[in-house]
Amino acid sequence: MTGAIHSAPSATVNIARSHRLRRTPFTEGVEAAGVRAYTVYNHMLLPAVFASPQEDYRHLKEKVQLWDVACERQVELRGPDAGRLMQMLTPRDLRGMLPGQCYYVPIVDETGGMLNDPVALKLAEDRWWISIADSDLLFWIKGVAYGLRLDVLVDEPDVSPLAVQGPLAEDTVAEVFGDRIRDIRFFRFDWFEFMGRDLAIARSGFSKQGGFEIYVPDTGIGMPLWNALMEAGAGHDIRAGCPNGIERVESGLLSYGNDMSRENTPHECGLGRFCNTQTAIGCIGRDALLRVAREGPIRQIRPIEISGDPVPICDHHWPVQAKGKVVGRVSSAAWSPDFNTNVSIGMVRMTHWDPGTDLEVVTPDGTRPALVCNEFWNS
Amino acid sequence: MTGAIHSAPSATVNIARSHRLRRTPFTEGVEAAGVRAYTVYNHMLLPAVFASPQEDYRHLKEKVQLWDVACERQVELRGPDAGRLMQMLTPRDLRGMLPGQCYYVPIVDETGGMLNDPVALKLAEDRWWISIADSDLLFWIKGVAYGLRLDVLVDEPDVSPLAVQGPLAEDTVAEVFGDRIRDIRFFRFDWFEFMGRDLAIARSGFSKQGGFEIYVPDTGIGMPLWNALMEAGAGHDIRAGCPNGIERVESGLLSYGNDMSRENTPHECGLGRFCNTQTAIGCIGRDALLRVAREGPIRQIRPIEISGDPVPICDHHWPVQAKGKVVGRVSSAAWSPDFNTNVSIGMVRMTHWDPGTDLEVVTPDGTRPALVCNEFWNS
Repeated sequence: MTGAIHSAPSATVNIARSHRLRRTPFTEGVEAAGVRAYTVYNHMLLPAVFASPQEDYRHLKEKVQLWDVACERQVELRGPDAGRLMQMLTPRDLRGMLPGQCYYVPIVDETGGMLNDPVALKLAEDRWWISIADSDLLFWIKGVAYGLRLDVLVDEPDVSPLAVQGPLAEDTVAEVFGDRIRDIRFFRFDWFEFMGRDLAIARSGFSKQGGFEIYVPDTGIGMPLWNALMEAGAGHDIRAGCPNGIERVESGLLSYGNDMSRENTPHECGLGRFCNTQTAIGCIGRDALLRVAREGPIRQIRPIEISGDPVPICDHHWPVQAKGKVVGRVSSAAWSPDFNTNVSIGMVRMTHWDPGTDLEVVTPDGTRPALVCNEFWNS
Repeated sequence: MTGAIHSAPSATVNIARSHRLRRTPFTEGVEAAGVRAYTVYNHMLLPAVFASPQEDYRHLKEKVQLWDVACERQVELRGPDAGRLMQMLTPRDLRGMLPGQCYYVPIVDETGGMLNDPVALKLAEDRWWISIADSDLLFWIKGVAYGLRLDVLVDEPDVSPLAVQGPLAEDTVAEVFGDRIRDIRFFRFDWFEFMGRDLAIARSGFSKQGGFEIYVPDTGIGMPLWNALMEAGAGHDIRAGCPNGIERVESGLLSYGNDMSRENTPHECGLGRFCNTQTAIGCIGRDALLRVAREGPIRQIRPIEISGDPVPICDHHWPVQAKGKVVGRVSSAAWSPDFNTNVSIGMVRMTHWDPGTDLEVVTPDGTRPALVCNEFWNS
């Protein structure tokens, strides 16, 4: 179960290294860049901090960063039933989706509970990649395909996404892959060559600062590509970075396992616009979601501003109260330098979810006034 | 995706805290006891080091430790088809299993690839708990049950195992739960009362030092039970501990994700004795495993002694060579103070797996002579 650790003073808590927490094709570059904290995501190391959360945030918003997001593992569906299975997995209607498109797709179980919120890439009519958030979605898909005897291959190919994010991302990526990269529209992908290999590159990423995700096949070209992008971005002050907790909360980007779980329907997560349950014929959970869509959820994700000094680490759900009664919870929170307040993602009951509603949030260092906002800060 | 971090000097790598890496009912006790490193297991914090791997090891072998293994999450099967589904999940024949028994059960996919290696507890004919290793087995089981329209509830109940391990474990647990605890045989469980709740207690655990696993329902009684056991064990020098990488390699206890994965059959993992594929009618992967059982695996888990100074951290597979040709890999390794050598778990091709075969292991600090052993060290 456990491996050894890096030496550390007793006041800090380290991550114990082991093969079970998989290294990535880019870990060498991440370590050379001085990663200071990891998290674990899909049984893989995901960098979490380089300089500091605040410095990383500032740099991401002004420059360009290279993110090792190999932990966004792919589930590949291939074969005659691939399209049918893909539509079973999500209440989003996929009939109009073309090869070369990416769709953000809520994946739910038979009761409409969220299992994952990945991005699906349609490679061909009979071939899809699902770029997953932090749960073993492969197991669900394999189980369903087995139980229904579908004629489809379901596997985790050796493909590791590398993201280039920030306002200077396009100029950086264009230096390596040419100006054709500028023609890729948002949530579209195209194929580009690097060291003799074909790579899918999508205009997407887990920030609202713009950029690309490069789907890197096999490990052999990982570090050469990392180095090529670092060199191309040198003039733009490129740095190694990672999904940033402040920026993502400002942007209202949800994190599976933090802000939502199997307990929640897509409608509770504010993902109703990605559900076309009426027309997504054959999708799992359709009966339950038709009911939810008709009645509406009774609680929902909301942007919540928390007053006072910078909040501490949000590593468990903080109760949200109104006049002492619990009406929800905050699941992610951070001090925002740009908006000069504590930004957070909460789930609030319908009785108290209107913008402008005064609430209290029970943080580890005390109960604080809070306010339901109209929209996320980086909207 | 990310949370904030504990402050740390730049030379060390910390774990980024977030709700996604769930705290447990015992985390408060773990932190008070001075945990120095965590790993992440089933999206949950698992302590990895307290004093040091070596000191923790020595203490485990001589005294008694309290382990927060809440990350051994339960999958509950309940309903008319629960028994049928349980037998579908594993090639181990469950027909003779009685309520009150625990079985170590390899779980495989349709090709015989390992998905998990949990311990199953039979609570009743129509109710089972599966105490899982590090993969979202819930997703596989839910998918299969959905696809086959089985009449069964599949869920993750709020049950958190707490292990008491070490030679003085029985005396410690008896002080809290009474002498009836001494009657529990190996891999059996019985029910005991604590603060008005019924707890299943099994004689089991992820070490070969003896002890129990207590299945603690809901979070309310977690810390009271932790404190009661700490108090009961005070005279036995009880300490907070955790699965220890040295002891588990000496004992040949495999770790899913480290020593095996979906790539491997149970036979490759040396778990053939837990497969009764011929008589386990209806089990998934039966066709593939009948073939493997007939022909035998072409590579298998072996205890391997690596010569020289203490090996570094094994956080990726180390190639195993014979005369420069790769014939396997080492997946877990540690310096053993008791056996005065580096102990390791490897997977070796049949051409080189006989005890006494001379090999070389490519460690990060050089290639070293190694030897296939006859049995694991704590056998």
